[in-house]
Amino acid sequence: MAKEKKLVEAITPMDKDFAQWYTDVVTKAELISYSNVRGCMIIRPRGYAIWENIQKQLDARFKETGVDNVYLPMLIPESLLQKEKDHVEGFAPEVAWVTHGGEEQLSERLCIRPTSETLFCDHVKDIVHSYRDLPVVYNQWCSVLRWEKTTRPFLRSSEFLWQEGHTFHATAEEAKERTEQMLNVYADFCENVLAIPLVKGKKTDKEKFAGAEATYTIEALMHDCKALQSGTSHNFGNGFAKAFGIEYTNKENKLSPVYETSWGMSTRIIGAIIMVHGDDSGLVLPPRIAPVQTMIIPIQQKKEGVLDKAFEIRDMLKSNFSVKVDDSDKSPGWKFSEQEIQGIPTRIEIGPKDIEKGQAVIVRRDTREKIVTPIEKIEETLAEVLETMQNDMYNKAKAHLEKNTHIAHNWEEFNDILENQQGFIRAMWCGERECEEAIKDENGATTRCIPFVQAKHSDVCVHCGKPAKCEVYFGKAY
Amino acid sequence: MAKEKKLVEAITPMDKDFAQWYTDVVTKAELISYSNVRGCMIIRPRGYAIWENIQKQLDARFKETGVDNVYLPMLIPESLLQKEKDHVEGFAPEVAWVTHGGEEQLSERLCIRPTSETLFCDHVKDIVHSYRDLPVVYNQWCSVLRWEKTTRPFLRSSEFLWQEGHTFHATAEEAKERTEQMLNVYADFCENVLAIPLVKGKKTDKEKFAGAEATYTIEALMHDCKALQSGTSHNFGNGFAKAFGIEYTNKENKLSPVYETSWGMSTRIIGAIIMVHGDDSGLVLPPRIAPVQTMIIPIQQKKEGVLDKAFEIRDMLKSNFSVKVDDSDKSPGWKFSEQEIQGIPTRIEIGPKDIEKGQAVIVRRDTREKIVTPIEKIEETLAEVLETMQNDMYNKAKAHLEKNTHIAHNWEEFNDILENQQGFIRAMWCGERECEEAIKDENGATTRCIPFVQAKHSDVCVHCGKPAKCEVYFGKAY
Ligand SMILES: [Zn+2]
Ligand SMILES: [Zn+2]
Repeated sequence: MAKEKKLVEAITPMDKDFAQWYTDVVTKAELISYSNVRGCMIIRPRGYAIWENIQKQLDARFKETGVDNVYLPMLIPESLLQKEKDHVEGFAPEVAWVTHGGEEQLSERLCIRPTSETLFCDHVKDIVHSYRDLPVVYNQWCSVLRWEKTTRPFLRSSEFLWQEGHTFHATAEEAKERTEQMLNVYADFCENVLAIPLVKGKKTDKEKFAGAEATYTIEALMHDCKALQSGTSHNFGNGFAKAFGIEYTNKENKLSPVYETSWGMSTRIIGAIIMVHGDDSGLVLPPRIAPVQTMIIPIQQKKEGVLDKAFEIRDMLKSNFSVKVDDSDKSPGWKFSEQEIQGIPTRIEIGPKDIEKGQAVIVRRDTREKIVTPIEKIEETLAEVLETMQNDMYNKAKAHLEKNTHIAHNWEEFNDILENQQGFIRAMWCGERECEEAIKDENGATTRCIPFVQAKHSDVCVHCGKPAKCEVYFGKAY
Repeated sequence: MAKEKKLVEAITPMDKDFAQWYTDVVTKAELISYSNVRGCMIIRPRGYAIWENIQKQLDARFKETGVDNVYLPMLIPESLLQKEKDHVEGFAPEVAWVTHGGEEQLSERLCIRPTSETLFCDHVKDIVHSYRDLPVVYNQWCSVLRWEKTTRPFLRSSEFLWQEGHTFHATAEEAKERTEQMLNVYADFCENVLAIPLVKGKKTDKEKFAGAEATYTIEALMHDCKALQSGTSHNFGNGFAKAFGIEYTNKENKLSPVYETSWGMSTRIIGAIIMVHGDDSGLVLPPRIAPVQTMIIPIQQKKEGVLDKAFEIRDMLKSNFSVKVDDSDKSPGWKFSEQEIQGIPTRIEIGPKDIEKGQAVIVRRDTREKIVTPIEKIEETLAEVLETMQNDMYNKAKAHLEKNTHIAHNWEEFNDILENQQGFIRAMWCGERECEEAIKDENGATTRCIPFVQAKHSDVCVHCGKPAKCEVYFGKAY
């Protein structure tokens, strides 16, 4: 038991030090390992398997909306990066520059892509000539690099994995529709697969993507009441198209600019899964994204028939669930701890007494509830348990989000909430950048989004008292 | 018809200029587009879809052998690259160097990974301590970069996509077994899915991977009788482990070095698919790897009921086949040409007369054979046609390989074959590097492999006349 205790104790309690809890979980659950390359993480098998599931499910959703996958170069010539003014200002300070190829110094520096709008524009200019060539609806799965000063696994690393969608349309309206459509794909995926409830809205001009006309976002609330931007979708209008000279001949045989969007979700979302659902025993993975949905743990496995029964149950389950048997020579208690740290949604305990009674015990990771089931009904029962768990996890997170979303009618309330309760603060805002910056300087709260569903709490801005333009979600964020 | 003719004429005949034929196929079939980034290609939807199918099927085969996917950084510190002497000598001349992050000059240069042995060793040193931690059987899907002077789409580009497997074992024997196992996975995949027959063997010391003890290879023969190395598997013994100080405590509680392998297949294999199966009308994709297996092309589609029937057939087929309907307003002839250029294995022609007779016509891409089938039996018929086509394509390629594999008993024969017949040349070799280099200098032939199945054609080396050590496959190669 000493060893088992040690394994569990290795995780710092959330309430004691949330940042340390997070670090403990990502390392002890073996999701990542730190590398000797500045700001870059190693995504280990258990972490990468989550990303593979995310990729698989998101990719299927993308393809349903007509997305084609492509692959563009990882390097961008400096002159190309500079074509769109706002974009280069936003990204140039944080890119890595390649200056030498082999022994030879390059005549032009190349940066490792921090994002690929410029490359996609450069390519689309070559392939789009007529309205018949539109829309172009592309996506790329790749890694990108942004030179970060302080890094944290998944949440902020110099290199990260993501998908970046880039689409090109004949009309501004179509581009707007695509931007919204993809935000909804992200939102649906987060809520239904990752069990993460969201606030959906538009970024302020200050917070929008470098070069975009409008950025839409989904914002989630972590266990520590900080916000995490979980996916974004940008409408570029025809700004990039004009900078890159992308024109097409329309049905009236006239040259028109194209309208562009881009949208991305990254390995950062794994950080959200951890911080929304995790607990003091480790990771808790929603059943629909868990690489392993149930771990069968034999009790007294050396007794005749126990292991056989464990594998028999595995075989009953394997066509419909992702299932493993832990037949290592560790003690059951140790195995329980490992399954819990790793966040495997359920375990199935099966020992000699259970076999005698023709039953097995399913234990939920989130509530630790034990469900006794006849072995012959185990498929049905497990399906029910996982389905219930998925819904309960969403509802629990939703309740947390609601409980920690507050309305501030005035600046005093705003500061009071920020100091004593945290979470999202809904308040009216004047729409001015200076005011937004002053709020951030004063107490560190940033605008998370202008929610699509607007409410009115006052006629004036919560901070400066000027006439209010809209309701905004404020918060401290990762 | 003028336009259709133009589309077909756009491809240079193979016999006229094979290199130009290749370039025409990769661009007209829209597999790639050239980028403005030196030596890097853009993989377009039709090219990437082939790669996605390769990934999916290879990945499933890897996982059956117990492989876990991971992701390691794209950058390697110069000091890390230098740890294994042969390795750095092999790769340093062809890597891209990052010297600046944002505005700041780095204290140590970082190269973009040309391959990741050094990173995997560095990581495994941290996670392997005891025999219980072994074996480590990892794979990574990623892009790598090697600064190439002359590049060709898929065959040789500065950046390319690949998978790189890296495994670590307790014994030399286990490492050797894994090296062979993975070569067999590649060979099986190439022969059964890509319909590409192979020669399997070991690379000579000169041709082996930088830092490896032994490199195994699968070699394919292209339509122009040049060889293409299609996949490699390397046994490192404990060379890297010693350079990186990776040791584990064995069952006898003693420190032992680990044994390592790596193995890779890249987007280069798409070049092999093109050059083994393509013809003067364009690409020909084996049914088991084709992103679209059949294109339904309606004839007189404006006539009532034709399009309905086309979609009805699509719906009959879509659960078992990858199927599309070309309902664009181009002429049927134009659509045939496009389907042929793109290498879609079959098309289904359906017009008013067919509908009257309750039939449809399946046309094979490789032989252009027309198979008339009752519509109600179309699923069965198509399955048969695709299966037959897959086998016929393999057999045709196999016959080409056999016809163009020659035995040279002496140097005169060797040169005669190389000049007049080309293809693989089987000959005896002394095993000496100087002799191998002299052969290459004299006529450009390189050793492709020392085949696993050895034959004896003479007692002496085909070139220098010294006693022969083994049979070798020679050839000119991509
Ligand atoms: Zn204000
Ligand atoms: Zn010789």
